[in-house]
Amino acid sequence: SLERMKEIEEIDPLGRTMTVQAGVTLQTVQTAAGEAGMMFPLDLGARGSCTIGGNVSTNAGGNRVIRYGMTRDLVLGLEAVLADGTVLSSLNRMIKNNAGYDLKQLFIGTEGTLGIVTRVVLRLYEQPGSENTALVAVKSLDAVSGFLKHTDAGLGGNLSAFEVMWNGFYALVTSPPADNTPPISQDYPFYILVEALGSDQHSDQARFEQVMAGALEEGLIVDAVIAQSGNDRNALWALRDDVEQTMRHGEPFIFDVSLPITEIEAYTEAVSARLDRDWGDYHCWIFGHLADGNLHLVVAVGTADDEARRKVEAAVYRPLQAIGGSVSAEHGIGLEKKAWLSLSRSAEEIATMQRLKAALDPNDILNPGKVFA
Amino acid sequence: SLERMKEIEEIDPLGRTMTVQAGVTLQTVQTAAGEAGMMFPLDLGARGSCTIGGNVSTNAGGNRVIRYGMTRDLVLGLEAVLADGTVLSSLNRMIKNNAGYDLKQLFIGTEGTLGIVTRVVLRLYEQPGSENTALVAVKSLDAVSGFLKHTDAGLGGNLSAFEVMWNGFYALVTSPPADNTPPISQDYPFYILVEALGSDQHSDQARFEQVMAGALEEGLIVDAVIAQSGNDRNALWALRDDVEQTMRHGEPFIFDVSLPITEIEAYTEAVSARLDRDWGDYHCWIFGHLADGNLHLVVAVGTADDEARRKVEAAVYRPLQAIGGSVSAEHGIGLEKKAWLSLSRSAEEIATMQRLKAALDPNDILNPGKVFA
Repeated sequence: SLERMKEIEEIDPLGRTMTVQAGVTLQTVQTAAGEAGMMFPLDLGARGSCTIGGNVSTNAGGNRVIRYGMTRDLVLGLEAVLADGTVLSSLNRMIKNNAGYDLKQLFIGTEGTLGIVTRVVLRLYEQPGSENTALVAVKSLDAVSGFLKHTDAGLGGNLSAFEVMWNGFYALVTSPPADNTPPISQDYPFYILVEALGSDQHSDQARFEQVMAGALEEGLIVDAVIAQSGNDRNALWALRDDVEQTMRHGEPFIFDVSLPITEIEAYTEAVSARLDRDWGDYHCWIFGHLADGNLHLVVAVGTADDEARRKVEAAVYRPLQAIGGSVSAEHGIGLEKKAWLSLSRSAEEIATMQRLKAALDPNDILNPGKVFA
Repeated sequence: SLERMKEIEEIDPLGRTMTVQAGVTLQTVQTAAGEAGMMFPLDLGARGSCTIGGNVSTNAGGNRVIRYGMTRDLVLGLEAVLADGTVLSSLNRMIKNNAGYDLKQLFIGTEGTLGIVTRVVLRLYEQPGSENTALVAVKSLDAVSGFLKHTDAGLGGNLSAFEVMWNGFYALVTSPPADNTPPISQDYPFYILVEALGSDQHSDQARFEQVMAGALEEGLIVDAVIAQSGNDRNALWALRDDVEQTMRHGEPFIFDVSLPITEIEAYTEAVSARLDRDWGDYHCWIFGHLADGNLHLVVAVGTADDEARRKVEAAVYRPLQAIGGSVSAEHGIGLEKKAWLSLSRSAEEIATMQRLKAALDPNDILNPGKVFA
């Protein structure tokens, strides 16, 4: 349509770039890349409604970060309007350009506080020629780590997703009234959705099955189902994506934290201990992009009032401080988390952020009140 | 040794991170990662002498950018000393952390002008389980582009190097007095060194050979040798690395430009036309990381005086302006290129760089006189 032609300004399959307006949705970009025989690999649940400008401003992550990186890694250039009205056109189309400071970094993940992004040059990739997906069950977080290492080494550059679901989340999304049934028993402590994107379905599938079989033999995983069709794959992803089930027990609080993989066990125990102490009856479901150290926690305590929010936030965020974790892996700070920024960033870091803000937006007119408390 | 223990502060193979002092050499980091069963993938000819701090300050690229990215992509966190003496400790160890601005970006590729990097948290990768290398001959730049697309799609996430040598460079490094002999005829216009890093030598080699055979059948390449051993691989890389042969005709000028792959043919013709016009007798050798759009040009005109330098620089740099190319792909600006920065960056971009510099280093005490003319 004419509308889309305006939003997608240029596609260059040989140069592997696409120039778009910031207001285009992620899904429109994915579709346009596909029609040009290429792929734009950023993918997340909100693909139909989120805009590329929003993805840039929060440095969005999503389901394929292990293989293709976050939004920051997929942006080659951009145009931004500064607070003083300057149109900063930095529409680089090359993978490598070190001619002075890489100014686009100022506008990626800074939530519109340093400039308004208007156009973006995106990096395209070749379309994968194979897709292999499995759901496996694992007995401990140590085994999760070991299985990640085994899988990443065994699949070379092809590992594209490593989504872990704690037992409670898996049971929730595979029990009525949820639509889905459990592909493997609900009795294991952890479930992992593994996906590899490669080039040749026949030989990649053989390798994928061999890597899963090796993990079973070594005792890293204790059960597995491997998707045999596109329908199978969709059914496995439907479990991971059915986050809506967590709304069953009243409006929950949703978190997006990041921490070193080796700290996850102690961290989740610390959160549970705090929630146990503060709440008699509550639910805490955990899942996330574990290869990136990124966990989503969804906590329902029967009420969503401000006092409950503060107590639950404290339970989830406070244990991050000692282990150098982050209160925001991929959702940014905005208004909701600005009171907690100092838990993940030092006074010197926040002062330096504010110095940047003052230098580029001295009158505080760009998204005022966001990020900083 | 005790010295090395001080330089390498921590290695965490499960968390896939390594914390080092900025003064450690790249080779020491590579070796330490290898001893821990992991890999630090940044690699370039100067590995034995360049420091991680230097790699960070120039956002170094090198031989494996297609697969693993530049230094920016391999740095998770860092510590820097600011102009006012603030020690900004931002030693993040996570792949995803969007808690406020990503301050490390300020110090990567800014050549020490915004702060002095003192410690760096590096991202480690699993060691590859397979390595496959070929040298192929190609008849045109269109075929080079087509072969890149064919190879990248066919090898999935495993393509790690795509180094193109123009005929003149290949002839130089495979003729006496150079030590090496030509593995394939010197009669072709372009030669490409292709490398893939994967997980299983047996099946990856079969795939690699199949992809090369397919390219021959499709006429994308016209000749090929595939390394059958580590010695073969080293012999092929020795050609690409024998840049020293360009010193034979007096001190040359060495360039590091970047441009969209689709512009390379017109660009190299424009450079040749200017050199033909200005010099009766000269040599211009071209090679580079073509998948990244990064070309190295080495030009020898029999003299290295300032006037010759200015004329040769104009011949190489001026044709970049119209096509949005960069005067520096991976070597930074420093002193040598600051007069040419405005050719690759707009007045607004340079003013924004200077605004950042003024905000963080108001008295201009950090690497003064670099980057900006």
